[in-house]
Amino acid sequence: MKTSIFPLATLREIPREAETISHQLMLRSGMIRKLAAGIYSWLPLGLRVLQKVTTVVRREMDNLGALEILMPNIQPRELWDQSGRWDSTGEQLLKIKDRHQHDFCFGPTHEEVVTDLVRRELRSYKQLPLTLYQIQTKFRDEIRPRFGVMRSREFLMKDAYSFHTTESSLEETYLAMGEAYHKIFTALGLKFRMVIADTGNIGGNISQEFQALAHVGEDIIAYSDGSGYAANLEMATTMAPREDTTGEAGLTLATVDTPGVTTVAEVAELLQVPQRKILKTLIARGNHQPYVALVLRGDHELNEIKVAKLPEIASPLTLIDGSKLPEILGCSAGSIGPRNLSIPTIIDRDAFAVKNFICGANRDGQHLLNVNWHRDVPASYVADIRKAQEGDPSPDGQGKLHFARGIEVGQIFQLGKKYSCAMEATVLDENGQATALYMGCYGIGISRTVAAIIEQHHDQRGILWPTAVAPFQVVIVPMNLTRSPRVKEAAEMLYKELINNKIEVLFDDRQERAGVIFADMDLIGIPHRIVIGDRGLERNTVEYKFRSQTDAMDIALDKILDFIKDRIKTV
Amino acid sequence: MKTSIFPLATLREIPREAETISHQLMLRSGMIRKLAAGIYSWLPLGLRVLQKVTTVVRREMDNLGALEILMPNIQPRELWDQSGRWDSTGEQLLKIKDRHQHDFCFGPTHEEVVTDLVRRELRSYKQLPLTLYQIQTKFRDEIRPRFGVMRSREFLMKDAYSFHTTESSLEETYLAMGEAYHKIFTALGLKFRMVIADTGNIGGNISQEFQALAHVGEDIIAYSDGSGYAANLEMATTMAPREDTTGEAGLTLATVDTPGVTTVAEVAELLQVPQRKILKTLIARGNHQPYVALVLRGDHELNEIKVAKLPEIASPLTLIDGSKLPEILGCSAGSIGPRNLSIPTIIDRDAFAVKNFICGANRDGQHLLNVNWHRDVPASYVADIRKAQEGDPSPDGQGKLHFARGIEVGQIFQLGKKYSCAMEATVLDENGQATALYMGCYGIGISRTVAAIIEQHHDQRGILWPTAVAPFQVVIVPMNLTRSPRVKEAAEMLYKELINNKIEVLFDDRQERAGVIFADMDLIGIPHRIVIGDRGLERNTVEYKFRSQTDAMDIALDKILDFIKDRIKTV
Repeated sequence: MKTSIFPLATLREIPREAETISHQLMLRSGMIRKLAAGIYSWLPLGLRVLQKVTTVVRREMDNLGALEILMPNIQPRELWDQSGRWDSTGEQLLKIKDRHQHDFCFGPTHEEVVTDLVRRELRSYKQLPLTLYQIQTKFRDEIRPRFGVMRSREFLMKDAYSFHTTESSLEETYLAMGEAYHKIFTALGLKFRMVIADTGNIGGNISQEFQALAHVGEDIIAYSDGSGYAANLEMATTMAPREDTTGEAGLTLATVDTPGVTTVAEVAELLQVPQRKILKTLIARGNHQPYVALVLRGDHELNEIKVAKLPEIASPLTLIDGSKLPEILGCSAGSIGPRNLSIPTIIDRDAFAVKNFICGANRDGQHLLNVNWHRDVPASYVADIRKAQEGDPSPDGQGKLHFARGIEVGQIFQLGKKYSCAMEATVLDENGQATALYMGCYGIGISRTVAAIIEQHHDQRGILWPTAVAPFQVVIVPMNLTRSPRVKEAAEMLYKELINNKIEVLFDDRQERAGVIFADMDLIGIPHRIVIGDRGLERNTVEYKFRSQTDAMDIALDKILDFIKDRIKTV
Repeated sequence: MKTSIFPLATLREIPREAETISHQLMLRSGMIRKLAAGIYSWLPLGLRVLQKVTTVVRREMDNLGALEILMPNIQPRELWDQSGRWDSTGEQLLKIKDRHQHDFCFGPTHEEVVTDLVRRELRSYKQLPLTLYQIQTKFRDEIRPRFGVMRSREFLMKDAYSFHTTESSLEETYLAMGEAYHKIFTALGLKFRMVIADTGNIGGNISQEFQALAHVGEDIIAYSDGSGYAANLEMATTMAPREDTTGEAGLTLATVDTPGVTTVAEVAELLQVPQRKILKTLIARGNHQPYVALVLRGDHELNEIKVAKLPEIASPLTLIDGSKLPEILGCSAGSIGPRNLSIPTIIDRDAFAVKNFICGANRDGQHLLNVNWHRDVPASYVADIRKAQEGDPSPDGQGKLHFARGIEVGQIFQLGKKYSCAMEATVLDENGQATALYMGCYGIGISRTVAAIIEQHHDQRGILWPTAVAPFQVVIVPMNLTRSPRVKEAAEMLYKELINNKIEVLFDDRQERAGVIFADMDLIGIPHRIVIGDRGLERNTVEYKFRSQTDAMDIALDKILDFIKDRIKTV
């Protein structure tokens, strides 16, 4: 491709709206342009990369024996009513009325449609296991789209769905899919972690995310330095505390005046105790009772994902605003404590392990000292409801937890029978019994993966594409193209040779200064640069530079083709 | 691919909802399944064909130097307001509100988005001409979706857009695109005609359609048997009649009573004259005047597309219902005539050529005889407003018109400056003057093309895929696979050899009777069938049959690979 017919849309300035490196570089290199909030057009350069990621994903899906299909964007409401998600998905679901005022949505995911397809088409358990996938545009009406294609509303996704008669068959495909994802993200040059994940609105019991490590990642992942344990912070657990690790004796319960002191930090300061000795109490709406108390150590934070899953908690999780508490409990937020509290109480495991703790007295301006579970407060319901923290012991007892930020590029789910039961997707088993199908689903955010690759592969001058996804492998920069017939001839010859060898090559025939061209090529991140000039040609050489190296080297003109072929294979 | 992991979704019965052969065969062969009215999922077999069509289209676009991009499905209203099409497109446009109640639509076409992109990105006239294309899902909310993917609401389309500083550059690209379309549809095995077409809601002055010939086609095309002239009936013209072809003398104007006689046929019967001597008058809403009369020969039909384009006619074209005419003109519909009519009159060219004609007297129950233009009726506005008819002389004077039905698989447009003026898409020309861009646009209905291919390539037993789009080239049918180790070995060996030679092969390892397998393979239309059985293997042969031939032939086992490679190249 010659730049004269492949116009580059590079920008010198860093666009103001772009906060992340990948967003900046995708705009500056001319890969994408914004059409509306969270909605982007892919320009020729960007689309080449997007298609390369797609190719890698498709290859591994095909290798796995998954069958490609293409389901519609526009889905009828009826199916979403059957799964119960028409109402539960919330405003992310882009709802549409057609000309006949029938309800549809723009598919944010395709569990309903694929379950409907399979329940109609499946004829025998002998056709199972079956894995179907598609590579297709999705729309999720994010409330705050940002970071370019990293959290956009319209994006390209690979979504796969598997169907089974047994749970073990589902587990097998789930594992195989995980391995395929490992191959895909490795081939794409990503540093990533597979982490335990929440299943969210998709559902099911078991899920793992593939998180590309990056400072700008919106997810926090907790991983052990002593084992393979890794989880999204939403799901991260720690080693359960032993009930008595100190052998500390129970002290006498006492009340202390704490006028105007309400926060954990203030209590710790006033009483000169570490925050971990103070327990705090939050109030949430209950499922069976109007309110439920949640008790945590003062130095711990509530994990809303974990607590929301408890059957005692009303869905969605609603924490009661402090200003409303006096009316409900007779004292203000900072003075609530578990002793003599009139509502059901859920105690975090770590809060339950504290002896002689301090807590609110359920009276404004007073706290209790040396409170102990059982002796002073009945404790019937203990659960893990806190966020893991850096330095916590790993739940497998091996090593401590560290945190990193990640971009979720893929997620796999064991859905179980959630959709097949709701939508009556059954098959006759060997004994002629109708049995609901086990299902798995498996997504890769293809657009977002492009951004994740850039977050991991760039320098001050631009993108450093891994070979598998580079929009072009080689750029030829001829110096003085219009005035030097010798340069023109050598450049055109090499260009043809590279094309004949199926190497994707950009020929920069713009009438620009060398500095401008070099800056553009560094920005868009072509791995291999060949400069052809009169001075070199006099010695029968051309100048070669690898994108990530600072120094160029001279290569004999008659060796450059083999040199490049070799380099592309090895880097 | 083995059928054990590529489940076939063939149907024995003809689905009741499918009226056309292609719709029936696409359902029966398991290519598509309906999700909602005009919305289909593509199953693995169908998607393979869809992707092959896509590959052919992409190859020719790339050969042309068009650059592939990917624009969003969801488009903001603002751009459609700028072009004026938010209101003018009508209910085909699927309008959507996002969570913030902003207006969007699901793109039925992308003139607005691409014009916006180019007006922002174009830096110099030196980047022109520029052709961008995408292959992407569109949605058009058809009032009557039918015939499966032939007139569906959601479909895959290739849409290309070109930008130019001069009209001649636009013409050049338009011609090149037409040639590329010829290559594409030829490669896809289609019999088609390129015909003059209406530009409709897309706009512009010049347009041609590529019509795949098929009985079920929704378009009628008129073509000459003596020249290359061909046009959609909407646009078809005939040779302009000479004003006096008979030398007939003017007879005396007279009035005749025709009580209760209103239709052309009744008048012709009563007066014993051919219908072509009778002129009929229709009334339409006018643009500058409330009403305009349209005069046609009794044996001709109004062409609504042609008449709608006349500046005197209100848009959209509205013909006045006969029941309202007495109130407006003082007589009923069958008695209206051009003589002494109080409203402006547009006379069809052929009506203008009739001497001594008969027409309504503008009084119920009376007609006029021997009316002549000029002498009896002033005739200032003559235009071509009728539908061409079979047997009419071709407008180029060479040959007569014949009619055929076609499926519109592609259309190309010279848009001129319609969008660039409305949306201020300009570029500085060589003299530093801002000039609006000339644009062209070029579509191919990829989903519909698949249906068109089937309409032209089938027999009673199923589809007859052309090589370029066959989902698989070869099917291996092993007889007695589970019981004959010899058959299994030979079949598996040939299967591997074909794969190694990059030939797409389906291995039917189902435990079905040969008759069922043969019927399925004929239905899905695999071109080359190889049956491997013990009887043949005893003589070291396998049985080969080409899908469209009735007889099978024996081929030596050690020759079959070369034989197949050769056959694939030649058919």
